Amino acid sequence: MERVGCFQFVAEPYLMDCRGRVTMPMVGNYLMHAASGHAGARGFGYSEMTERHTAWVLSRLAIEMKAYPKAYDRIKLYTWIDEVGRLFTSRCFELMDEEGNTYGYARSIWAAIDMQSRRPTLLDIEALSPYIDPRPCPIEKPGKIQPVEERTEGVPYAIKYSDLDINGHFNSVKYIEHLLDLFDIEQFMRQEIGRLEIAYMAEGKPGMPLALHKEEIASGHYGMAICSEGKALCRAAVTWR
Amino acid sequence: MERVGCFQFVAEPYLMDCRGRVTMPMVGNYLMHAASGHAGARGFGYSEMTERHTAWVLSRLAIEMKAYPKAYDRIKLYTWIDEVGRLFTSRCFELMDEEGNTYGYARSIWAAIDMQSRRPTLLDIEALSPYIDPRPCPIEKPGKIQPVEERTEGVPYAIKYSDLDINGHFNSVKYIEHLLDLFDIEQFMRQEIGRLEIAYMAEGKPGMPLALHKEEIASGHYGMAICSEGKALCRAAVTWR
Repeated sequence: MERVGCFQFVAEPYLMDCRGRVTMPMVGNYLMHAASGHAGARGFGYSEMTERHTAWVLSRLAIEMKAYPKAYDRIKLYTWIDEVGRLFTSRCFELMDEEGNTYGYARSIWAAIDMQSRRPTLLDIEALSPYIDPRPCPIEKPGKIQPVEERTEGVPYAIKYSDLDINGHFNSVKYIEHLLDLFDIEQFMRQEIGRLEIAYMAEGKPGMPLALHKEEIASGHYGMAICSEGKALCRAAVTWR
Repeated sequence: MERVGCFQFVAEPYLMDCRGRVTMPMVGNYLMHAASGHAGARGFGYSEMTERHTAWVLSRLAIEMKAYPKAYDRIKLYTWIDEVGRLFTSRCFELMDEEGNTYGYARSIWAAIDMQSRRPTLLDIEALSPYIDPRPCPIEKPGKIQPVEERTEGVPYAIKYSDLDINGHFNSVKYIEHLLDLFDIEQFMRQEIGRLEIAYMAEGKPGMPLALHKEEIASGHYGMAICSEGKALCRAAVTWR
């Protein structure tokens, strides 16, 4: 089995945003599809993890886009494992057009949790390591994100059916959708997001009262957070250009 | 070119709901994918319509599900044209599992509008008619939906970036997502939706203040609507079992 996986998509016109471009949450869905497919084909996918009563949990994600695919563009998405540690593994992505031009890169950090206790479990370093590939992913690694929740008024939000994933928790991509929806539609018409980074810190569950926070830290650079009763479930940083 | 098109999907685990099943909005996305692909391959897709300064607009949709696909299920989606009139065309769908068991059926009614005036245009009956197929679609046609908006208090909603489609209007599938999110999460755990029917009546645009309405008309049978300043943008009927 090759170390680098390649997945192909067509940017469907009925999924485009008002700019006629793929949305950042849609990019997130493409990444999840590729991560799931790549892991599954190599014996450490959703089914294999479930058999061992474990599940992959996305811990951090950074996406940098130079250009966004438009309707009918054919997208090639490459994914590979970058690093494997005792508790975390790092997976990289490159999105390309048909001619081999890069739309963008992404980096993700994953942990495996025990499905019962929801606590991290040790990774099988020996089984995962043969898939590590040195392919370059020239974007900054996801790092520490400045907290903004204590300095800003949050927008209240109640978790809904469409927000939940197969484990009954807030879906990772839906967090991104709700955070980006804090920006005015006009901002998406004038500018585009160069980099999005998100750190998943705690699981969101039905019934939790949420607050969505946003603060402009520097020109075009925003700190964001989703909190429940003062505790951050996720923090994000968004850079516009 | 065959009259009936067949599209294949795998129910991705990262897109499942908290029941571990495909959601109704996801079924909607599969239908849009198949409709778009079937029309495109036969010379009346998004690109060809755009060249003529026209666009397909979904007018009515009815979906009946006997069973919902679960993670990793392979889904075959058949679609065909059922009727062609001067202003409307009817497209049917059947969703099947790998063994040929039917998950469900759907019926949709489409109009073509002029992109400038946003008014209906006459359909090219001669060009579309050769694709009409008599394949059976044994569910009730989408019909008149009882208005409930005057009898119920609406939940206010502001249109966000993620709600918009490529034309800058409220995305047809997002209407379904927002309406179903009016039901408690517990209801999805206890019951499932047997039939959803929706009539799209006017286009939702950024800045419109919306109200989401829901009323139980008979046991397990709900009337719904999304309104802006008293005018219905869409009405829906949902039957649980």
